[in-house]
Amino acid sequence: MASDPSTPPPWAKGRSRRLLHTRVFDVRQTQFRHPARALARDFVVIDAPDWVNVVALTPRHELVLVRQFRYGTAALSLEIPGGVIERGEDPVRAGLRELREETGYTGRRARVLGHVHPNPALQSNRCHLVLVRDALSNAPVQWDRDEELEILTKPVDEVYALAQRGRLTHALVLDALLLFAPVWARLKKRAV
Amino acid sequence: MASDPSTPPPWAKGRSRRLLHTRVFDVRQTQFRHPARALARDFVVIDAPDWVNVVALTPRHELVLVRQFRYGTAALSLEIPGGVIERGEDPVRAGLRELREETGYTGRRARVLGHVHPNPALQSNRCHLVLVRDALSNAPVQWDRDEELEILTKPVDEVYALAQRGRLTHALVLDALLLFAPVWARLKKRAV
Repeated sequence: MASDPSTPPPWAKGRSRRLLHTRVFDVRQTQFRHPARALARDFVVIDAPDWVNVVALTPRHELVLVRQFRYGTAALSLEIPGGVIERGEDPVRAGLRELREETGYTGRRARVLGHVHPNPALQSNRCHLVLVRDALSNAPVQWDRDEELEILTKPVDEVYALAQRGRLTHALVLDALLLFAPVWARLKKRAV
Repeated sequence: MASDPSTPPPWAKGRSRRLLHTRVFDVRQTQFRHPARALARDFVVIDAPDWVNVVALTPRHELVLVRQFRYGTAALSLEIPGGVIERGEDPVRAGLRELREETGYTGRRARVLGHVHPNPALQSNRCHLVLVRDALSNAPVQWDRDEELEILTKPVDEVYALAQRGRLTHALVLDALLLFAPVWARLKKRAV
């Protein structure tokens, strides 16, 4: 790929300085230099820890969902559980922790479906998408002070239909549904 | 939905101040107050214009892709075309404009597949996902000074396979593929 002459070359990272520090992300300004052209320019990048979200499948083939008020959009949002991965924490362990803390569900056979970049143009971090099977509601929830969630389950196909009808609009949730789709196709075939 | 007692109530927006202004987004701190509990807290929100990305389908049922260096991840990224919607611009018109400027492709029968929230927890804006049919390379590209793109096309099913194999990791691109999936299933059936 790198040897393809039509592939643009990577720019070189230059000096960088922090413009803003917040509880959930930093904003940095970093200079990038084009490797061939005499071109250097500052770009703004949002640095945040990696995130995780969780496709939690119950034995009856329902997905665990949460509805909560989101401060970015200042509106309620229907989502799958998820959150911030702690420093040094494994994505699978983080996914199981967030699932338990937010919903009181635990599960087994957890594995990473994949990861995405929430916005490669502006953000450096990744969001890991984790699948948890055999999800059961059997633990106490542990909400942060600002957290208040409605916990619900819906049949998997209904969740895909909600996404198609624009009722599930969290970009990273839809990514998890895309990567879960082939797994679900196989599970469904087996269940019929 | 709002009358469901298990649904959390929306918080009330209070005073807000801008923490940072950049070329591509602002960061604001806004106070939110819980409607029932004596709880007020400041949350940080990233305000950006709405974005658009484009599923551009050629007459041979290939998708138009771009590969470019992305400053957020400091790496090359394989994506569908897209960009920032200008003030007052219609998402479909913006999608057709970005497609033409970035790739030199024009098309017909353009329509909105849906929209997503890139991150309801942190961002106020939306990304609109636009489908363009009959895409043909017949216009000059118009790149910004920092833009340098490899333009390629790939059969639709190959693009879905790349997404599943982790070769396409832009969250908003995968969203467009999810919303395009039922349309593609219908088109494919008709083509066979």
